[in-house]
Amino acid sequence: MAADRTGQIVVAFISERTGEDAEGYAIAAQAMDALAARQPGYRGIDSVSSGGVGITLSYWADEAAAVAWRNHPEHAETREAGRGRWYKWYRLHVAEIGRSYGWDRG
Amino acid sequence: MAADRTGQIVVAFISERTGEDAEGYAIAAQAMDALAARQPGYRGIDSVSSGGVGITLSYWADEAAAVAWRNHPEHAETREAGRGRWYKWYRLHVAEIGRSYGWDRG
Repeated sequence: MAADRTGQIVVAFISERTGEDAEGYAIAAQAMDALAARQPGYRGIDSVSSGGVGITLSYWADEAAAVAWRNHPEHAETREAGRGRWYKWYRLHVAEIGRSYGWDRG
Repeated sequence: MAADRTGQIVVAFISERTGEDAEGYAIAAQAMDALAARQPGYRGIDSVSSGGVGITLSYWADEAAAVAWRNHPEHAETREAGRGRWYKWYRLHVAEIGRSYGWDRG
Protein backbone atom coordinates (compact mmCIF):
# COMPACT_ATOMS: atom_id res chain seq x y z
CA MET A 1 0.00 0.00 0.00
CA ALA A 2 1.41 3.39 -1.02
CA ALA A 3 2.04 5.53 2.03
CA ASP A 4 2.71 8.96 0.63
CA ARG A 5 -0.41 10.49 -0.83
CA THR A 6 0.71 14.12 -0.56
CA GLY A 7 -0.97 16.17 -3.27
CA GLN A 8 -3.70 13.62 -3.91
CA ILE A 9 -7.40 14.34 -3.43
CA VAL A 10 -9.22 12.23 -0.87
CA VAL A 11 -12.98 11.83 -1.05
CA ALA A 12 -14.31 10.76 2.36
CA PHE A 13 -17.75 9.15 2.28
CA ILE A 14 -19.30 8.45 5.68
CA SER A 15 -22.68 6.75 5.68
CA GLU A 16 -25.22 4.79 7.60
CA ARG A 17 -27.22 2.20 5.73
CA THR A 18 -30.89 1.46 6.10
CA GLY A 19 -30.39 -2.27 5.73
CA GLU A 20 -32.95 -2.33 2.92
CA ASP A 21 -32.03 -4.10 -0.30
CA ALA A 22 -28.72 -5.40 1.06
CA GLU A 23 -28.16 -7.57 -2.00
CA GLY A 24 -28.79 -4.74 -4.44
CA TYR A 25 -26.43 -2.57 -2.44
CA ALA A 26 -23.66 -5.18 -2.43
CA ILE A 27 -23.91 -5.68 -6.20
CA ALA A 28 -23.88 -1.95 -6.89
CA ALA A 29 -21.03 -1.30 -4.45
CA GLN A 30 -18.86 -3.93 -6.09
CA ALA A 31 -19.67 -2.59 -9.57
CA MET A 32 -18.86 0.97 -8.48
CA ASP A 33 -15.56 -0.09 -6.89
CA ALA A 34 -14.54 -1.82 -10.11
CA LEU A 35 -15.65 1.11 -12.25
CA ALA A 36 -13.82 3.64 -10.04
CA ALA A 37 -10.61 1.62 -10.31
CA ARG A 38 -10.71 1.99 -14.09
CA GLN A 39 -11.02 5.77 -14.05
CA PRO A 40 -8.08 7.97 -15.05
CA GLY A 41 -6.39 9.37 -11.99
CA TYR A 42 -7.72 6.70 -9.61
CA ARG A 43 -5.15 6.14 -6.83
CA GLY A 44 -6.82 3.63 -4.56
CA ILE A 45 -9.43 3.13 -1.89
CA ASP A 46 -9.70 2.37 1.83
CA SER A 47 -13.05 1.20 3.12
CA VAL A 48 -14.35 -0.14 6.42
CA SER A 49 -17.91 -0.78 7.51
CA SER A 50 -19.45 -2.20 10.63
CA GLY A 51 -23.04 -2.42 11.80
CA GLY A 52 -24.29 -0.45 8.81
CA VAL A 53 -21.93 2.49 9.32
CA GLY A 54 -19.17 2.84 6.78
CA ILE A 55 -16.26 5.07 5.88
CA THR A 56 -14.83 4.92 2.38
CA LEU A 57 -11.81 6.96 1.35
CA SER A 58 -11.13 7.14 -2.37
CA TYR A 59 -7.93 8.74 -3.59
CA TRP A 60 -7.50 10.66 -6.83
CA ALA A 61 -4.53 12.14 -8.66
CA ASP A 62 -6.12 15.57 -8.72
CA GLU A 63 -9.32 17.52 -8.39
CA ALA A 64 -10.26 16.99 -12.05
CA ALA A 65 -10.09 13.21 -11.64
CA ALA A 66 -12.31 13.34 -8.53
CA VAL A 67 -14.85 15.53 -10.30
CA ALA A 68 -14.83 13.31 -13.38
CA TRP A 69 -15.66 10.32 -11.19
CA ARG A 70 -18.46 12.22 -9.47
CA ASN A 71 -19.89 13.10 -12.88
CA HIS A 72 -19.46 9.66 -14.43
CA PRO A 73 -22.92 8.81 -15.82
CA GLU A 74 -23.06 5.27 -14.42
CA HIS A 75 -21.87 6.48 -11.03
CA ALA A 76 -24.41 9.32 -10.98
CA GLU A 77 -27.19 6.94 -11.99
CA THR A 78 -26.34 4.41 -9.28
CA ARG A 79 -26.03 7.13 -6.68
CA GLU A 80 -29.42 8.55 -7.58
CA ALA A 81 -31.07 5.14 -7.69
CA GLY A 82 -29.66 4.03 -4.38
CA ARG A 83 -29.78 7.14 -2.29
CA GLY A 84 -33.21 6.89 -0.74
CA ARG A 85 -33.11 3.12 -0.57
CA TRP A 86 -29.71 2.27 0.89
CA TYR A 87 -28.79 5.17 3.10
CA LYS A 88 -30.19 6.79 6.21
CA TRP A 89 -27.68 9.58 5.80
CA TYR A 90 -24.30 10.28 4.36
CA ARG A 91 -21.59 12.89 4.51
CA LEU A 92 -19.06 13.52 1.78
CA HIS A 93 -15.92 15.60 2.13
CA VAL A 94 -13.47 16.35 -0.67
CA ALA A 95 -10.03 17.33 0.59
CA GLU A 96 -6.53 17.87 -0.69
CA ILE A 97 -3.84 15.93 1.14
CA GLY A 98 -1.10 18.21 2.39
CA ARG A 99 0.85 15.70 4.48
CA SER A 100 0.97 11.95 4.44
CA TYR A 101 2.72 9.41 6.66
CA GLY A 102 2.90 5.68 6.86
CA TRP A 103 4.33 3.18 9.27
CA ASP A 104 4.79 -0.56 8.96
CA ARG A 105 5.83 -2.94 11.69
CA GLY A 106 9.47 -3.65 10.91
CA MET B 1 -24.07 15.75 12.85
CA ALA B 2 -22.70 18.83 11.10
CA ALA B 3 -22.67 18.31 7.36
CA ASP B 4 -20.65 21.20 6.01
CA ARG B 5 -17.02 20.90 6.95
CA THR B 6 -15.66 23.12 4.19
CA GLY B 7 -12.41 24.73 5.34
CA GLN B 8 -11.83 22.24 8.15
CA ILE B 9 -8.79 19.97 8.33
CA VAL B 10 -9.46 16.24 8.27
CA VAL B 11 -6.90 13.82 9.64
CA ALA B 12 -7.51 10.36 8.17
CA PHE B 13 -5.97 7.52 10.18
CA ILE B 14 -6.17 4.08 8.53
CA SER B 15 -4.76 1.18 10.50
CA GLU B 16 -4.62 -2.55 11.01
CA ARG B 17 -4.27 -3.82 14.55
CA THR B 18 -2.13 -6.68 15.72
CA GLY B 19 -4.74 -7.88 18.20
CA GLU B 20 -2.15 -7.74 20.98
CA ASP B 21 -3.06 -5.98 24.20
CA ALA B 22 -6.66 -5.37 23.14
CA GLU B 23 -7.62 -4.11 26.58
CA GLY B 24 -4.73 -1.65 26.77
CA TYR B 25 -5.63 -0.42 23.32
CA ALA B 26 -9.30 0.09 24.20
CA ILE B 27 -8.44 2.06 27.34
CA ALA B 28 -5.93 4.25 25.49
CA ALA B 29 -8.27 4.81 22.54
CA GLN B 30 -11.08 5.96 24.79
CA ALA B 31 -8.72 8.26 26.73
CA MET B 32 -7.38 9.74 23.48
CA ASP B 33 -10.88 10.32 22.09
CA ALA B 34 -11.85 12.16 25.27
CA LEU B 35 -8.63 14.17 25.29
CA ALA B 36 -8.99 15.11 21.60
CA ALA B 37 -12.53 16.34 22.21
CA ARG B 38 -11.21 18.82 24.77
CA GLN B 39 -8.63 20.36 22.44
CA PRO B 40 -9.15 23.85 21.00
CA GLY B 41 -10.35 23.64 17.42
CA TYR B 42 -11.68 20.08 17.74
CA ARG B 43 -14.64 19.68 15.37
CA GLY B 44 -15.60 16.04 15.72
CA ILE B 45 -14.72 12.50 14.76
CA ASP B 46 -15.97 9.66 12.58
CA SER B 47 -14.60 6.21 13.29
CA VAL B 48 -15.35 2.70 12.06
CA SER B 49 -13.44 -0.51 12.62
CA SER B 50 -14.03 -4.08 11.62
CA GLY B 51 -11.83 -7.15 11.86
CA GLY B 52 -8.90 -5.15 13.17
CA VAL B 53 -8.92 -2.63 10.31
CA GLY B 54 -10.06 0.86 11.20
CA ILE B 55 -10.57 4.27 9.70
CA THR B 56 -10.78 7.29 11.97
CA LEU B 57 -11.44 10.77 10.64
CA SER B 58 -10.83 13.62 13.06
CA TYR B 59 -11.84 17.13 12.10
CA TRP B 60 -10.11 20.33 13.15
CA ALA B 61 -10.88 24.01 12.75
CA ASP B 62 -7.55 24.64 11.08
CA GLU B 63 -4.07 23.35 10.47
CA ALA B 64 -2.73 24.80 13.72
CA ALA B 65 -5.33 22.90 15.75
CA ALA B 66 -4.46 19.63 14.00
CA VAL B 67 -0.73 20.17 14.58
CA ALA B 68 -1.32 21.08 18.23
CA TRP B 69 -3.17 17.80 18.72
CA ARG B 70 -0.38 15.85 17.03
CA ASN B 71 2.13 17.52 19.35
CA HIS B 72 0.08 17.16 22.53
CA PRO B 73 2.47 15.48 25.01
CA GLU B 74 -0.02 12.87 26.24
CA HIS B 75 -1.05 12.04 22.69
CA ALA B 76 2.57 11.74 21.54
CA GLU B 77 3.41 9.53 24.49
CA THR B 78 0.48 7.19 23.91
CA ARG B 79 1.25 7.01 20.20
CA GLU B 80 4.87 6.11 20.87
CA ALA B 81 4.00 3.57 23.55
CA GLY B 82 1.38 1.86 21.43
CA ARG B 83 2.85 1.92 17.98
CA GLY B 84 4.80 -1.32 17.92
CA ARG B 85 2.32 -3.12 20.14
CA TRP B 86 -1.10 -2.30 18.71
CA TYR B 87 -0.56 -1.76 15.02
CA LYS B 88 0.65 -3.84 12.09
CA TRP B 89 0.65 -0.71 9.99
CA TYR B 90 -1.02 2.62 9.70
CA ARG B 91 -1.41 5.45 7.22
CA LEU B 92 -2.14 9.03 8.14
CA HIS B 93 -3.24 11.74 5.75
CA VAL B 94 -3.83 15.37 6.68
CA ALA B 95 -6.06 17.18 4.21
CA GLU B 96 -7.96 20.43 3.88
CA ILE B 97 -11.63 20.06 3.05
CA GLY B 98 -12.55 22.03 -0.05
CA ARG B 99 -16.12 20.78 -0.52
CA SER B 100 -18.53 19.13 1.81
CA TYR B 101 -22.00 17.63 1.32
CA GLY B 102 -24.50 15.92 3.47
CA TRP B 103 -27.75 14.13 2.90
CA ASP B 104 -30.35 12.88 5.35
CA ARG B 105 -33.33 10.69 4.58
CA GLY B 106 -36.23 13.11 4.64
